[in-house]
Order: sequence, then structure tokens, then C-alpha cells
Amino acid sequence: MAAGKEKLYVIKIGGNIIDDETALKAFLQQFAAIQQTGNTKLLLVHGGGKLATRVAEAMGIQQQMVDGRRITSAETLKVITMVYAGYINKNIVAQLQANSCNAIGLTGADGNVIKAHKRPVTTAGIDYGFVGDVDEVNAALLNNLIQQNIAIVLAPLTHDANGNLLNTNADTIAQETAKALSDLYEVHLVYSFEKSGVLMNAEDDSSVISTINPSTYQSLKEQQVIFAGMIPKLDNAFAAISSGVHKVVIGKADNLPALLDGTSGTSIVHA
Amino acid sequence: MAAGKEKLYVIKIGGNIIDDETALKAFLQQFAAIQQTGNTKLLLVHGGGKLATRVAEAMGIQQQMVDGRRITSAETLKVITMVYAGYINKNIVAQLQANSCNAIGLTGADGNVIKAHKRPVTTAGIDYGFVGDVDEVNAALLNNLIQQNIAIVLAPLTHDANGNLLNTNADTIAQETAKALSDLYEVHLVYSFEKSGVLMNAEDDSSVISTINPSTYQSLKEQQVIFAGMIPKLDNAFAAISSGVHKVVIGKADNLPALLDGTSGTSIVHA
Repeated sequence: MAAGKEKLYVIKIGGNIIDDETALKAFLQQFAAIQQTGNTKLLLVHGGGKLATRVAEAMGIQQQMVDGRRITSAETLKVITMVYAGYINKNIVAQLQANSCNAIGLTGADGNVIKAHKRPVTTAGIDYGFVGDVDEVNAALLNNLIQQNIAIVLAPLTHDANGNLLNTNADTIAQETAKALSDLYEVHLVYSFEKSGVLMNAEDDSSVISTINPSTYQSLKEQQVIFAGMIPKLDNAFAAISSGVHKVVIGKADNLPALLDGTSGTSIVHA
Repeated sequence: MAAGKEKLYVIKIGGNIIDDETALKAFLQQFAAIQQTGNTKLLLVHGGGKLATRVAEAMGIQQQMVDGRRITSAETLKVITMVYAGYINKNIVAQLQANSCNAIGLTGADGNVIKAHKRPVTTAGIDYGFVGDVDEVNAALLNNLIQQNIAIVLAPLTHDANGNLLNTNADTIAQETAKALSDLYEVHLVYSFEKSGVLMNAEDDSSVISTINPSTYQSLKEQQVIFAGMIPKLDNAFAAISSGVHKVVIGKADNLPALLDGTSGTSIVHA
């Protein structure tokens, strides 16, 4: 279905890498090496990590929690903007440049790359604060930069076009960006996380299921083989491939080339 | 000399605007309105402001000073990256988007836009720390974005291509960027500061000298009319026009259209 299109890897890394300086450095070296091999097109989405919590604590900003969910107050948003869009994003970009990978760090506000709206107060009356749900991805500008062989590094922040930045889930940003770029590219959406992939046995990191398609997913669910916590992630992955994404890969980022070529992790495919 | 080239305004705003929410908002509204009038090409460079000091204090990071000059330690650089590249830069961009001005916020690391080197230890043995002196501006990428009618918003940070971000004077960034883009544009370099322009009488804000060229500058210096503190600024302005910048304007940013059309502030011109 995507024959003839150029490949684009949309890769999401989470706090487990961001917080580990050595792991992050190794990851960025692999990322840069992949870009240099045949001008591979890359887009990286990073999550937050623990630094925001440490900065908030140092500044005396209380974390507000409702039903175990973090609320993004105006003060928390300020810290998140500093840490995600400033410290983390710019250090990733500087490290990629040091590895001869031209990269540009953006939030959703930059170039109007991702427009969102503030999540409405729930029917249960929960106001998540400055949290954004994505409305629109500016694929034209992203494509323009990608075509200049610049790797895009997205921080998990969007904007509402009314002057507000909004804290936005990095998995969602990766998914929406992957979907929006699927008209132009054969998009491989890669979620790196702490496990080696989707496991047959949650306790055994070697029990990775290498490929799941809609029919095997159905039977794995019926057999109750899949750990309940993985189901929302997999539902999202299938939603992504239904929206035009070529393939979704879930696995550990410590061997990025293997994850991208499908020899490690779990691949979620059409059929 | 620059006949036929399109105009580009490179505008530097300092801490006096950044720290004043109302003044910043008004400035950004004027800036956005100018962009919308005939797709005027704009590049904004912002300085720091007091927030970095407040965040550093809150985090218990001591400001190191040597001979009245601030030293950028690794910890201070972290704070500056958070505040300049994160909070200030992204809030400016989000506000411009709210005023229908498409803008993109960058540091020198992004797209390798400004490469610099760490300032060497002085002969007096002063190590300024992570402070950058500019080596090279990537005019091609800036031009590419400008041609898409995207206003560029530069934070005062560069990179050394070895993975280090470097704290870099915003006036210098404005000047180097203006020079680098002068091959492609008729560049008007605008420095906004707290006074209405270069004054005949430092105590009288209405004594603005409207135009200075190399010969009037010489005679003003001989008459010792110009406040000594202005001389380095003016020397830099004349260096900029010698390097191809069309015109330098120095004045207050509260009436940006008047500053850009030369009806307020002091214009430094070729002859």
C-alpha cells in the first residue's frame, strides 16, 4: 500500500532513556548513525523524565494529583516548558549535532507544527489543567524540514493558537505525527519502552511476540495471553495502522538498528 | 547598494521587555501586525531577563561573578537553557501564533543555525565558562524558513558542534545573523533598548540624534557629545554596516512601526 514512498521513522523515547545519561548518549549515537546511512528520514519524540519533578520541587511547586493523574497547573506548565522544550530538547539536538546529525528541536507551537485544544473538564469534574489533545499536525512544514535531511526532535508540548502552550502526551504526539505524515511517507512508528516488546510471559523478557496482526491480536486477547497493561498501547498501535501508518514497532531502544529493521521488538502490522 | 533585495528586519529585544509581561504582549502584537503587512520578513532575537536569576536562586545555584562579569558554570548553563530556550522562547512563539504570526523558535544548535566556540580563557586568566563566540551562521536554513513567511525567534544560545550549548550575547547574535543574511536581504538591524535612541543629552530622552553616519559620528565623538557607554554599541553598529548590513536602528521598542520606518530612534547609516 505504501509502495514507492520513502521510509520515515517516527521514534518515541521515554523517561527511562532521558533520565539515563549514558543510555541517552548511546541512543543518540545510534540515531545519528542511522541518519547518515542513506539519508534516512527520522523524527524523534521525547518524553519528560524526572528532571521536571526535581525542578518543580526545587522551586517549591506542588504537584497536583487527582485520582492518580497529574494536573498541569500554570506553574507546572512553566516548569515543563523549561525542562522539556528547553533543557531536554536542546541537549538532544546539541548531542545529535555533535554526532554529525543535523537536527532541529521543536514544540507544537514552533511553525504551528501541532495545534491542540485544552482537554475539557471531564464529566466527573476533573480539570487536567494545561493538557492538550491534538487537533492538527502541520505535515507540510515537517516534510519541508525532513526533505532537507534535518532530523526533527519534538518536545511533548503543543499550543492552542490562543497563546497557551499545552502539556501533551509524547505517545500521542508520535502517533498523530506518524498518521499525518503517512500520506507522504511509508511511516514506521517506533515506541521504545522498558521491555523488549510485547511478551507472552510478562516475567520473561525473552518471550517477545515478534509480529502481531489484527487476527493474531484477536486470538491473543481471547487466550488472555497479553498483559492487560499492554492492551491500550496495542489498541493505539492498531488504530495507527488503520489510519495509514505502515507499521508500529514496540521494544527496547538499546539496539535501535535491530528495532528499526524488525529483528527486535514486536511489530504490529496490517495482516 | 542593496537595491532590488527584499527587506529583512532583524530585531533584538532585551530583558527590559522580556520582564514586563504587558510590554512584551504589546510588542508581540505590533510585531505580528508588521509581519501581516505585506508579508514583511522578520527575525527576532531575545535576551534573557530576570527569570533565569530567580530560577537559579530557587534551585540554589550560586551566580559566579569575576570582575563584575557573570561566569556561565555548567549549572548556570542548565538554567539558562531552560529559561531562554524553553520558557521565554516558547512563550514568545505561542503568543505570536495567537496573533496569527507564524513563528519558529530556535537556538543556534537547531538546524546548526549558529555555530560558536567556547570563549578562550583570557590572558588575565578569566574563564567565562560556557560562553560562546560566534563562528558561523547558517544563512541557507534561516533563508529557507524566512521564505516560507515564518518569523524566526532566536534564543541567545549557540552550540560548539561538540555537544555543548553556549550562552551567547543576544546583541552579538543579532549582529552576526544580520551580517550573514545581508547577501540575501536588505537587512535592517534594530536594537531596542531602554532609551529612545542615541541622545545628545543623556538626561533628556527627547534629545535623540535621528541619524548618524561615519563622518557625523567622528565629529560627535570629537565634541564628546556621545555618552561613553554608547560608544561600544555604536562601534558595533558601524562594524555591522561595514559588513553589508543596510542600516542599524537603536531605540525604544514601544512603537515598533515608528522604529522600523525610521521616524523614531537613531539610524546608523553608511553616509
